Amino acid sequence: MKKIKGGITAPKGFKASGMHCGIKKSGKKDLALICSDVMANAAATFTSNKVKAAPILVSMEHIKSGKAQAIIANSGCANACTGSDGLEDAQIMAKATASALNINGENVLVASTGSIGSKLPLKEILNGIRILSKRVSVSGGGEAADAILTTDTRRKEIAVQIKAGGRTITIGGIAKGAGMIAPNMATLFSFITTDADVHSSNLKNYLKESVDKSFNMTVVDRDTSTNDCVFILANGMAKNKALRGKDEKEFKQALDLVCEYLAKEIARDGEGATKLIEVRVAGAKSVNDAKLIARSVAGSDLVKSAIFGEDPNFGRIMAALGYSGADVKQDLTSVYIGDTQVVNGGKAVFFDQKEAKKHLKGKEVLINIILAQGASIATAWGCDLTYEYVKINAQYHT
Amino acid sequence: MKKIKGGITAPKGFKASGMHCGIKKSGKKDLALICSDVMANAAATFTSNKVKAAPILVSMEHIKSGKAQAIIANSGCANACTGSDGLEDAQIMAKATASALNINGENVLVASTGSIGSKLPLKEILNGIRILSKRVSVSGGGEAADAILTTDTRRKEIAVQIKAGGRTITIGGIAKGAGMIAPNMATLFSFITTDADVHSSNLKNYLKESVDKSFNMTVVDRDTSTNDCVFILANGMAKNKALRGKDEKEFKQALDLVCEYLAKEIARDGEGATKLIEVRVAGAKSVNDAKLIARSVAGSDLVKSAIFGEDPNFGRIMAALGYSGADVKQDLTSVYIGDTQVVNGGKAVFFDQKEAKKHLKGKEVLINIILAQGASIATAWGCDLTYEYVKINAQYHT
Repeated sequence: MKKIKGGITAPKGFKASGMHCGIKKSGKKDLALICSDVMANAAATFTSNKVKAAPILVSMEHIKSGKAQAIIANSGCANACTGSDGLEDAQIMAKATASALNINGENVLVASTGSIGSKLPLKEILNGIRILSKRVSVSGGGEAADAILTTDTRRKEIAVQIKAGGRTITIGGIAKGAGMIAPNMATLFSFITTDADVHSSNLKNYLKESVDKSFNMTVVDRDTSTNDCVFILANGMAKNKALRGKDEKEFKQALDLVCEYLAKEIARDGEGATKLIEVRVAGAKSVNDAKLIARSVAGSDLVKSAIFGEDPNFGRIMAALGYSGADVKQDLTSVYIGDTQVVNGGKAVFFDQKEAKKHLKGKEVLINIILAQGASIATAWGCDLTYEYVKINAQYHT
Repeated sequence: MKKIKGGITAPKGFKASGMHCGIKKSGKKDLALICSDVMANAAATFTSNKVKAAPILVSMEHIKSGKAQAIIANSGCANACTGSDGLEDAQIMAKATASALNINGENVLVASTGSIGSKLPLKEILNGIRILSKRVSVSGGGEAADAILTTDTRRKEIAVQIKAGGRTITIGGIAKGAGMIAPNMATLFSFITTDADVHSSNLKNYLKESVDKSFNMTVVDRDTSTNDCVFILANGMAKNKALRGKDEKEFKQALDLVCEYLAKEIARDGEGATKLIEVRVAGAKSVNDAKLIARSVAGSDLVKSAIFGEDPNFGRIMAALGYSGADVKQDLTSVYIGDTQVVNGGKAVFFDQKEAKKHLKGKEVLINIILAQGASIATAWGCDLTYEYVKINAQYHT
């Protein structure tokens, strides 16, 4: 497996473009179109929030066939809590994209991110779709990556190549993270393309497995969006043989890498964040327990603000793992901050404050939790809680 | 039922005192002793955190008999993650208190709050216990209320009187909330006394019911402490007849009022808080669902920072109720900020921004959520998320 340049248009047969169509007052890009030259097998994961945005409802319907050929996504307006009008708007977005690309409306996936409760500026979007459908190109992947961003401070994209099924297979992905120009939700998008030939039922399983280990282990503020979604399109243009055994493993590892890279980028670029926090749990009774603990520690406001203050505050880590809901035996629990052991068998140990603080001064903080209750592991990613987070989310007015 | 002056020493036969024994560097009070002239029936609720502080483990053991005569509590050091040494220290605290008061060690409840992972300064505490045991008085309730505070900005106490079982019965309570001089945990204490004669098994049920509706519905930062506890001592000195029917109801309402008052005081005085947030849910399918929704909205960092910014950001409220885990049908959900309806049947409504903002400028913000899915209700309390919260929790160094 090797990393290559580019993102969503690195795999064969994918084109994209992004532009400012008129949603964001800032004039920044706000509409992205991604399409495949041929019909692709497709899979998706969606927010678990019971309150779902209109584009989520439309895409959930469209993904049922296991096929898709295009993704239309806007930033600056979430089209959530907009009732039946909003649903119609999302359907119109899909149909307009399909008609501009001369494909079927049901093969277009729709995604929106931005303020909740306001109506899409449909005229601007439809005009934008007409322009983008003519402009899509292999060099337009970066533009599309930019057009889905909101309060993100930088573009998030990756592409990797593997040899499998007798061919070179490429996987590319883009994502957006926490916040918006008009921040309303820690909304998460990721769109992934590949030229691999993979059956859509396999694709669905692979995506779910990768997302569970990556995006679903990322916490910025424990607020699950109404608009989260991850889409993958596999257009088969690599013309590989069926991926079995070693080849299947190689593909899944590559997809894992793409998802993990993008998930970490989202955490690192969380609203107001100055540090990436990685919480590794080992020795849990079950994978579920390991995940509960990792997410609980990575999501704790007290742990997050201690790390912003570069304070080796192991007590907050112990408290957060204790209330995680997992089966935790405190006497069997040990904690490391970087390489410094701070808790042994549930008890505070004397440790080198200087060494721990040196680690905390870095841009990536590692918390290792060893439970001695089983063999299960999990990793979660988060970011520190800063004045800037409060500022971003308090100063915005709807 | 009427409110009266005072707190924990308002009921007959209770004395208390508080002092600085030498734990806090600031010189503020850090040791409280509360005792009853006679043996009291007692009940307690404890933190659900799997990581439990030593005093919690000792008090869990001591409450088993359903009897207690004294509470010894310190602030400034949590005696958590201190292993078997810490357990021994907590036991010594109980024994020393018992011997100074000439009662049984098993009838003393112990509580500690403060930094996790450091050892209690036992010499100072033992000296303090000797002094306090001579100084306890009916006028010392306020001192005891002060001595359990940490980053709290003010004393929290209440006393109420009812006529029941043919007598005047008094219930008094004190509490501490979110933070410490050396803040490490949003630790919560509440100690309640009453001169009512109530069987300890009834007392246990009454306390659990009241705590579930009050303290357990309070959220400052979704970090459950290792040291939370609520104790109630009923010494029977009101010499009332058994509380049945109307009398039992009256007693439970009075206990509810005491717990709710103290819980709201804790939320209002949350670390860095400028506003109390009350989230009322009605029309949920079950009480459990109503509670999940109320707590989820009151605890959302995004809702909390919007309220700090005085922004009627209903989208974040919808998102937080959607991910609460409760059965929510978005099309049947309506939301009010104060008296202003902002969402109707899942859809944003045009509303009077001025009116909503006027409500948000106040010190108490009310969010009303109407679900139209059933008849169950619940209320939760929280506070806004401010720069000051981050400052308090980032600037402290262990």
